[in-house]
Amino acid sequence: MADFTEATTVKYVEPGSYDVDIDGTWSVGDVPNGGYLLALILRAVISESPHPHPVSTSAHFVAPPSRGRARIRVDLLRAGRTTATLRATVIQEGISRVEALITTATLDRNADVEWAGPAPEPVAPVDECIPAVVDLPDGTHVGLLEHVDLRLDPQTLGWFSGRPAGQLSMRGHVRLADGTQPDPLVLALAVDSLPPTVFGLGRLGWAPTVELSVTTRSLPAPGWLTVHLRGRLVRDGWFDEEAEVYDADGSLVAQSRQLARVRVT
Amino acid sequence: MADFTEATTVKYVEPGSYDVDIDGTWSVGDVPNGGYLLALILRAVISESPHPHPVSTSAHFVAPPSRGRARIRVDLLRAGRTTATLRATVIQEGISRVEALITTATLDRNADVEWAGPAPEPVAPVDECIPAVVDLPDGTHVGLLEHVDLRLDPQTLGWFSGRPAGQLSMRGHVRLADGTQPDPLVLALAVDSLPPTVFGLGRLGWAPTVELSVTTRSLPAPGWLTVHLRGRLVRDGWFDEEAEVYDADGSLVAQSRQLARVRVT
Repeated sequence: MADFTEATTVKYVEPGSYDVDIDGTWSVGDVPNGGYLLALILRAVISESPHPHPVSTSAHFVAPPSRGRARIRVDLLRAGRTTATLRATVIQEGISRVEALITTATLDRNADVEWAGPAPEPVAPVDECIPAVVDLPDGTHVGLLEHVDLRLDPQTLGWFSGRPAGQLSMRGHVRLADGTQPDPLVLALAVDSLPPTVFGLGRLGWAPTVELSVTTRSLPAPGWLTVHLRGRLVRDGWFDEEAEVYDADGSLVAQSRQLARVRVT
Repeated sequence: MADFTEATTVKYVEPGSYDVDIDGTWSVGDVPNGGYLLALILRAVISESPHPHPVSTSAHFVAPPSRGRARIRVDLLRAGRTTATLRATVIQEGISRVEALITTATLDRNADVEWAGPAPEPVAPVDECIPAVVDLPDGTHVGLLEHVDLRLDPQTLGWFSGRPAGQLSMRGHVRLADGTQPDPLVLALAVDSLPPTVFGLGRLGWAPTVELSVTTRSLPAPGWLTVHLRGRLVRDGWFDEEAEVYDADGSLVAQSRQLARVRVT
């Protein structure tokens, strides 16, 4: 079984209830990565949904889960003809760790683009990007990056050698190391796989996500995903990150926004 | 009592349970406006939260509510020292109409901006903007705009006279007609008060919001709010809208993203 498939396996217990084993290696330090948790949640959600594709997923990180057994509870709130709405909760030791709302639908890979806005700044080609390393300068081990093959645009990597670019910006290419091709679950992982944009200000260290929402705009083509992250504001101990994800055909396939915390200096 | 206060009044029933009267005039056609519903939800949420300010609100619109009585159910999922997470549901006739997740905290109006990205394209000054009219060219009555004083940038208003700008873009200034000054509830209303960005493509008509998330980045100063809306993609019957809201002091006070539907042509 592919690494990603295994790490996101959900085991049916009863209607709306799944046992999962949160993998301890899809993590940043000791904490399971938020995008990985979203993929796990979406695996359970899709099992309960009359429509196959999560078009909008909104997650609030209530309390950090730890590796090991957890329960995912899924409630189908409404099943319409073209969309359904579901609620999902990751429960560990009786405590809600992640809460999510998901709208599902059926996306058509061949749907025409009716209108698209201007593309964001270009990302350096894969072979000019730098493979991300699994150990950060501050000693944090990013186990996630043993599963995710991440190549970072050198222009957004100055922070690694003590020369931050002074921008809430991070760009790179992402694929799964095990060869799994992109789907909506991989997109949820991809939007949260790059280093936090505040690293671009030299603000290394813990930057916990409070809320992460992802939209799936189309089913991605096989191959690399290209991720553009930017943020607008660092204030009062909070910062934002907006992602646009393009597939190998150059189509916008996902967007995300997250709100996260950073130490007030 | 001010119009906005009255329309967002919540009546305590028992812990976590509030009776509300969904006002039939804060609406687009017959449907209560999504931002108004968010403000109503947030009034109930704040009553249950140990922290006063909603910093992140994620709402999925499950089924359109109608005017009249409804129940808002609020669950406090976790109360931390600096943040709390809550879940809220608007129930009408026994059916969930809107589901929301909210993270609350205490925002400091005087917190310094540590870093801010470039401002978006400028909006024409209030006195060069055009007051929005309550009846759209297709006959839809927008009762909301009897409560919200909306002035639209002429550059994004071509659609009204049959000359759409050909952009997913809408800009304007917003204040409440009753004189209520901006707060986080008014910000939730403001992000959803402008016409849908697809109008900028000449795609007038019903554009129902499926999901709307709002972050509050600071407590707004009194006066006009300036709203920049843009979208990136119309595809497969879906479009997105991202808002940035600035207060009268020029501070970024809210951001939002919504995913909405549009008829496939």
